[in-house]
Amino acid sequence: MKQIYDYIDSNFNNFLEDLKDLLRIPSISSNPEKKGDVRNCAYFAANKLKEIGINKVNIFDTQGHPIVYGEWLGAPGKPTLLIYGHYDVQPPEPLELWKYPPFEPVIEDDKIWARGATDDKGQFFAHLKSVESIFKVEGTLPINVKFLFEGEEEIGSSNLKIFLDKHKELLKCDAVLISDTSLYEPGVPTITYGLRGLCYAEIEVEGPNRDLHSGSYGGAVINPLNALTNIISKLKDKNEKITIPNFYKDVLKISDKEKKAIKKLKFNEKEFLSSIGLKNSIGEKGFNALERIWFRPSLDCNGIWGGFTGEGAKTVIPSKAFAKISIRLVLNQNPAKIFKELEKYLKSLAPKDLKINVKQLHGGDPAIVPIDHPVIAIASKSLTEVFGKETCFIREGGSIPIVVEFMKKLKAPAILMGLGLDSENLHSPNEHFSLTHLRLGMKASANFIMNFANYKRK
Amino acid sequence: MKQIYDYIDSNFNNFLEDLKDLLRIPSISSNPEKKGDVRNCAYFAANKLKEIGINKVNIFDTQGHPIVYGEWLGAPGKPTLLIYGHYDVQPPEPLELWKYPPFEPVIEDDKIWARGATDDKGQFFAHLKSVESIFKVEGTLPINVKFLFEGEEEIGSSNLKIFLDKHKELLKCDAVLISDTSLYEPGVPTITYGLRGLCYAEIEVEGPNRDLHSGSYGGAVINPLNALTNIISKLKDKNEKITIPNFYKDVLKISDKEKKAIKKLKFNEKEFLSSIGLKNSIGEKGFNALERIWFRPSLDCNGIWGGFTGEGAKTVIPSKAFAKISIRLVLNQNPAKIFKELEKYLKSLAPKDLKINVKQLHGGDPAIVPIDHPVIAIASKSLTEVFGKETCFIREGGSIPIVVEFMKKLKAPAILMGLGLDSENLHSPNEHFSLTHLRLGMKASANFIMNFANYKRK
Repeated sequence: MKQIYDYIDSNFNNFLEDLKDLLRIPSISSNPEKKGDVRNCAYFAANKLKEIGINKVNIFDTQGHPIVYGEWLGAPGKPTLLIYGHYDVQPPEPLELWKYPPFEPVIEDDKIWARGATDDKGQFFAHLKSVESIFKVEGTLPINVKFLFEGEEEIGSSNLKIFLDKHKELLKCDAVLISDTSLYEPGVPTITYGLRGLCYAEIEVEGPNRDLHSGSYGGAVINPLNALTNIISKLKDKNEKITIPNFYKDVLKISDKEKKAIKKLKFNEKEFLSSIGLKNSIGEKGFNALERIWFRPSLDCNGIWGGFTGEGAKTVIPSKAFAKISIRLVLNQNPAKIFKELEKYLKSLAPKDLKINVKQLHGGDPAIVPIDHPVIAIASKSLTEVFGKETCFIREGGSIPIVVEFMKKLKAPAILMGLGLDSENLHSPNEHFSLTHLRLGMKASANFIMNFANYKRK
Repeated sequence: MKQIYDYIDSNFNNFLEDLKDLLRIPSISSNPEKKGDVRNCAYFAANKLKEIGINKVNIFDTQGHPIVYGEWLGAPGKPTLLIYGHYDVQPPEPLELWKYPPFEPVIEDDKIWARGATDDKGQFFAHLKSVESIFKVEGTLPINVKFLFEGEEEIGSSNLKIFLDKHKELLKCDAVLISDTSLYEPGVPTITYGLRGLCYAEIEVEGPNRDLHSGSYGGAVINPLNALTNIISKLKDKNEKITIPNFYKDVLKISDKEKKAIKKLKFNEKEFLSSIGLKNSIGEKGFNALERIWFRPSLDCNGIWGGFTGEGAKTVIPSKAFAKISIRLVLNQNPAKIFKELEKYLKSLAPKDLKINVKQLHGGDPAIVPIDHPVIAIASKSLTEVFGKETCFIREGGSIPIVVEFMKKLKAPAILMGLGLDSENLHSPNEHFSLTHLRLGMKASANFIMNFANYKRK
């Protein structure tokens, strides 16, 4: 390994020049005017793949932005690794808040500053350069490698989902390696091994068939606003347990291994809460804040509206009221099943004379790669060796839909080897990426590829 | 009386020509461009007063539109009646829905069609013409009469309130006669004797100091939307009783006289509800819909908002959430006292980590003139004689702030002798006023004035 590390160290500054070229392309997927730049970025990435030794590279056109695919299958009998990244970026606005122009990368303070530096160009670049370095030092790769770069992650990955369905055979692999998440703390190697799922619903309630004057009717007729607040307030009990029937039936318990992993993190709940102006974690009894977010399902009202919401006092009883409710799911909850239970329950809570309509807006499966899965063990060992610290295992309270898609469709474990930091302003002005983490990421990636050669799929 | 009635009948068509002239003036108080028309209308009304024999007439300028005041005090030792009306009107828009132009009055189907016909030009006009008729027939009036016409009723009467404070002596009287409400049913003489008061509050709650992602925080922190729905749901119990401490302490019971008056109305609850698409009256146990609206306080959420309210699914836990809450009050509840109890109660309901801010937007006293008050008895007898039907006594679930102001400031009972109908499109296109009710109103007004001469203030 030492030779590979040395190669990375001695070429690191040249690598940065390549990364700067990549970051100069304003591949803003949400901006139709940048369609050409997004395409240019796809070609740039494809060319890079060819340059480093990936012998078969294709650009697949989609209804939206192109998908870049490359493969090197020169290690028959050996495991296959699919490396995913996205070359599209968030819009840079508001421009006036940037210290340097967003598409003119600058190196300062051991960081590279530009839109896309940490999300996700800088992160997937680490794997590109690790593969290049192995090729240069070893003349070959010990495993088969497939690269998949999409240009629509920031706008929902809808074409990648279609692509996955169509090209399951092409993308077949033993593991998917993704660097698009964060380290738990600077310098601490981290693997995200669990994601919550989502069931998102919109509720519409209707009482009287028109808006009424609260003087002429108040006290004698159903008020959809009061009725809706009553219904929502019944979705959780006073211990913050969700009251939907059968809701917790499929929920997996936190394993001993996971409990140990949490303990090691020395999570500072007080600090976590004070960063958002709070003193107390309010949630399900018997769990701390981290366990609540990572391991337990949750229910939140994400929006509510109805009646008069302008300045001053209007005495209206509105005909209708609305709310959005999202439920975060954990294994083995099923979004479709949960939505059905939610809908039935909401209807059962509606009083006489209240029509209620419940619509599912979004659903996503929860996913984990068991903490003791052998590919996780290999990745963890590589990270520990390179970073010089024990790898920590975290979950993510949110959902990363594409990760779940990979796992479901390719039936391969995903390794979320995040190299960013939550503080690196992804999606805000002054995005940046730590060069220390980039260099460590390249070495960890190389280490993992070398060791993954010995992995045997069960 | 017969001579007076005959005079009214034989001059009714001429009277209508005067009313048409009054209705032709587009005295839209809310429209700054119509300021001149509003002023013209004040002068027109002042001239009419002089024409009919009111010997002292003044136009008082205010910060807004003028107040017209006239008095005839030629009956010393006799009671004084203050007749109130408003000469301003609602905007006519949308114009395309009018059958006839709003300011070109047309007589059709025993109705006069124009903006202001029923609200309130046509209604106060009845009293003007009754006074004129008595003058013509009797050569004098049996009582002292004061007229007060304002031009800002449709925009809140704020300058009239100041005027009342300033001119208590000028306006001193034994009763205030107001026709600006509705008959219970066509042809049924009606006195509105009770109004509910109002306490209107806006609530702002704040949890985390910024909007959060419901994936990364959901289940572990307070969600202001859920917290607000919990708080609002606790303001009433399952029997729809308001749970604010000490809330019902001052509420007067429904008297036997009032119970009898309600019975006589033969209120059809089913019809009332089906007109707004409902089947059930939902409200305080032990009362029917009418009792709930007229005699019992009520609490309604009039508006609620927070979080994401656009199309689709956004998984946000917002920092703040808002609601508007109004409470309708009955005698002897006090808006200021109730607001304090509400504020204290809301704060007591707020969970840890939720900041709550409660602001009073509006307060108004409830008011009644006891159903057996002698002035009400005289007015009721006059109406019954003229309409040929027993006068019915109704309350109003809403508030008419200016009526309460008169009663409080002048310490005189208000007689709400409504001549309109709720179906006469006040505030909508095609406003109209029944000529039958106008004629009966003139006669009832004359009858009342003649009989009021015998009233002795206690």
